Order: sequence, then C-alpha cells, then structure tokens
Amino acid sequence: MDARYQLIPAWRIREGVGESIEDPVTRESPLTIILNDRELVTLLCTWEHVDELAVGFLQSEGFIKAGDDIPDVRIDEEQGSAIVKTARQAAVAEQTFLKRYITTGCGKGTSFYNLSDAVCRPVETGFTVTPAQIFRLMTEAQRMSEMFKITGGVHSSAVCTGENILFFREDIGRHNSVDKLTGRCFYDRIDTADKILLTTGRISSEILIKAAKMGVPVIASRSAPTDLAVKYAADLGVTVAAFVRNRRMNVYTYPERVSP
Amino acid sequence: MDARYQLIPAWRIREGVGESIEDPVTRESPLTIILNDRELVTLLCTWEHVDELAVGFLQSEGFIKAGDDIPDVRIDEEQGSAIVKTARQAAVAEQTFLKRYITTGCGKGTSFYNLSDAVCRPVETGFTVTPAQIFRLMTEAQRMSEMFKITGGVHSSAVCTGENILFFREDIGRHNSVDKLTGRCFYDRIDTADKILLTTGRISSEILIKAAKMGVPVIASRSAPTDLAVKYAADLGVTVAAFVRNRRMNVYTYPERVSP
Repeated sequence: MDARYQLIPAWRIREGVGESIEDPVTRESPLTIILNDRELVTLLCTWEHVDELAVGFLQSEGFIKAGDDIPDVRIDEEQGSAIVKTARQAAVAEQTFLKRYITTGCGKGTSFYNLSDAVCRPVETGFTVTPAQIFRLMTEAQRMSEMFKITGGVHSSAVCTGENILFFREDIGRHNSVDKLTGRCFYDRIDTADKILLTTGRISSEILIKAAKMGVPVIASRSAPTDLAVKYAADLGVTVAAFVRNRRMNVYTYPERVSP
Repeated sequence: MDARYQLIPAWRIREGVGESIEDPVTRESPLTIILNDRELVTLLCTWEHVDELAVGFLQSEGFIKAGDDIPDVRIDEEQGSAIVKTARQAAVAEQTFLKRYITTGCGKGTSFYNLSDAVCRPVETGFTVTPAQIFRLMTEAQRMSEMFKITGGVHSSAVCTGENILFFREDIGRHNSVDKLTGRCFYDRIDTADKILLTTGRISSEILIKAAKMGVPVIASRSAPTDLAVKYAADLGVTVAAFVRNRRMNVYTYPERVSP
C-alpha cells in the first residue's frame, strides 16, 4: 500500500449517470512528535519525509536552530511517531509554543508577531531573480506534482536556486510541505540566503514566518497572500510574489529582487 | 476601511512588463476567544461574523452544545477579542481541547478520532438530495463568493436546504468558514438533519468532524477528501460528495442519499 494515498470505492456521477469507481484518495496520517520523552504535538500529514517534517517543525517552532547539532530522530511507523532527542532542552521555545497553541497571552493578539520578531532576523542578501526564472520554476514544480495529479488533495512546495528545484515536497498541509523543506535544509546545512521558496498554497502570516525562519529572501506562490503576511514580509526582509500564473505575478515587497 | 480586505501597493509583472498597482489583499485578523474570563485560543480569521465564529468554535470544540442557552458574547473590535460567558463550565471539553492542542495522548494518534467519537452521534435522517440540486447550489455559492472574486484569498462555505442557500460565510480559514455556520445554526436553532454543508475547501478529517458536530447528513465540496475524512464519514453517518464541478461529483459514503 502506498503511504500517500489509497484507492477508495466511490460512486461517480457524470452528466446524470452514476458508476462505481475506485478513486485514489490522499491519506491523512497522524505524526506525533515526541521531543526528549515528552509528547509535543500531533500533526496530520502525508506520510512521506516525516523525519524532515519533525525536524522542520521543531526548527520552525524554535526548538532547534539552523546550525545546531542534528538531533537523533527515530521514526516509529507502527505508532505513527517521531521520537526526537536533542542535545539541549529549549525551555523558552516550549513556553512560547504552548502559549501560542493555548492562548496568545496579550489581548490584542499580536503575540504571534512578537514571537516571530523575537526569533527571526531580517533576511539580508544581495540575491536577485528574474521573473522568467520564477515562471520556469513554477511550471517545473507543477510538472513534478505527481500526488496532486493523482488525488487533487495535496499542496506542494519547493526550495530552488534561480535555475533549479533543489527539493520538492508534497503534503496535505500547506504548513507541513514547508516544514519538510525546512527540515531538509537543516539536514543538508543548505545556505538559504540565495534560495527561493515556491508553494502552491496561499501565503498566510504563518507561512511567511516559516519562510523567514527558513531564511529564504523570496517566497513565490500561485495563490494569494494575506495583508498580515505582506506586513511581516516587509518587516522581515522577504520578497512576496503571489498569483504566479500565466506569465503574470504580483510582487508585494522588495520588488527590486525580482528584476528582468 | 473594509475589515475584510485592504488595498496594498504591488508591482504587477505581465508579459515582461512591470507596473505599479493597488491590489485588494485579504485581511487576516486575530480573534482571541476569552471564555469565562480565561483566554482560550487566538484564531486568525476574516473579521466578519466573528460572534458566530466564537460560538461555532466553542460548539465544535465541545464547550457548548446545540440547544444550550445562547452564551453572552461581547466583541471587542479594538482588542480583537470575543468575550464569552456561558452558564456552566465545560471542564471536560477544556481538558480534551488542551490535550488535543498540545498532545493527543496516545501514541497511535487516534485520540482525534476518539474525541470526536465520544461527542458525535451518527447522523440519522431520511434526507435525500438530487445531484442536480447539489450542482445548482454549488454554482449559486460560487456566484455569491464576492471576497474570492476580489482577493482570491478566501474559502467559502454554506448551509443549504435542497433548494436554497440559507447561510453563506467566507473566511481565510477553511475551518473558520464552517465554524461561522455552526455558530449561525446555533443562534437560530436550525434543525440541521435535513441540511447540506457546501464548502470550497478540501474535506479533511477536521472538517468532517465539524460537519458531523453540526449535524448535517451531507457535505459537498469542489475539492478533494482525505481517506481519514471518508473513514470518519462512514462511521458518523455523513455523506461525502467531493470534486463537485462541471456537473460531476464523486460520492464516497452513503450514496443512497444522493439520488436522481
């Protein structure tokens, strides 16, 4: 059985006529991250590259930092868990993580932002990319999206140079597809200051913060951004290019990095 | 200023030519739900019908139940909060809620399901709908999606009879658009046993559970389902119709409810 999708009986109705089919449906698998003997969170994900997902999630949430020692990760397929051991405990991250998931602590709800602000340095780089390069990469990423073609039920994201896709990841969750890339870059010690993050999903504030923590100067999406993502991008030095389709795009921040 | 979107300067690139534009971008607003003087959670949402969102979220998470007294809800626009007072405390819900957000408690990650199982009764109803009715409702919902036309950045969901859309809600979050409907149905004491939930978003396990808690016998989406959603739907008595487009759909569970 493929861990990513399964055939499920369905009744297809077309032009008023029904027929029995077997339809490939994307699988949604729970991954429980156990950090230093403590259950941290359960993510619903596509069961593929889950070691990267665990490590990327931990980096996105501030439990580990780029350049830290690579943690010991053991995947238990039977239990659906990632058992992670790190050299040191990140007590502060744990506090902010719990706080964020339960309550944001300050009435105005700005602690998401303060949180990110505290742990993200603005991206500084002389990196530039041409619109033609972004169009080409987006077309290439769409071509690679095998699971989407099969099930229609996943998001895909990629880390690219101006010329090539380095890593391509799919997941039922927008966030997970980006976290997997963060994990891959962590494992391979990738210098992200001259890389582009492509995604099929919308650029929400949470995705933007993940991009900033990954350290990429450019995020490009086929879909729409939110105002909060654009605000964070302006503060954190990230170029946001959205609605990248049919040789068009809108660039909301630092357009000087996207020059013909 | 419209609470739902704002004009943001952008650099539009088309066929190699750049120009300055003002682009309507969907707004992402934090809503902190304060339940009986305790901060419970902060949702990022579209600031519209946020009283429904607060009440619907509380019902979805088991803090209140359909038929309970309507809680006292005060929206503080300045602070971005919903201050909710209920007649009684739902201590069990709070425990399972916190547990779910921090850890699922059992290694196999099945407690999401146990949770839903414990608080959802299978939907029982003789309700049926024709494929033609679902196609017509979906077309009508798309026509109503004003914000999507403007910003391209929202999901929309609707509660319908076989003939008409009763309530239509948009939000940057798939979950939120459904929670708003749950809240509206709670306020209006709507009998949901003969209603359809339409949504533009994918049918994940979390959306399916929300539909089951809302008590609708049919959920229909333009997008894909997941395997876990189909499994829960089978157990909870919900008909899942997905990929509803171009006069086609796939029905994964209880197809006898969708008959010509």
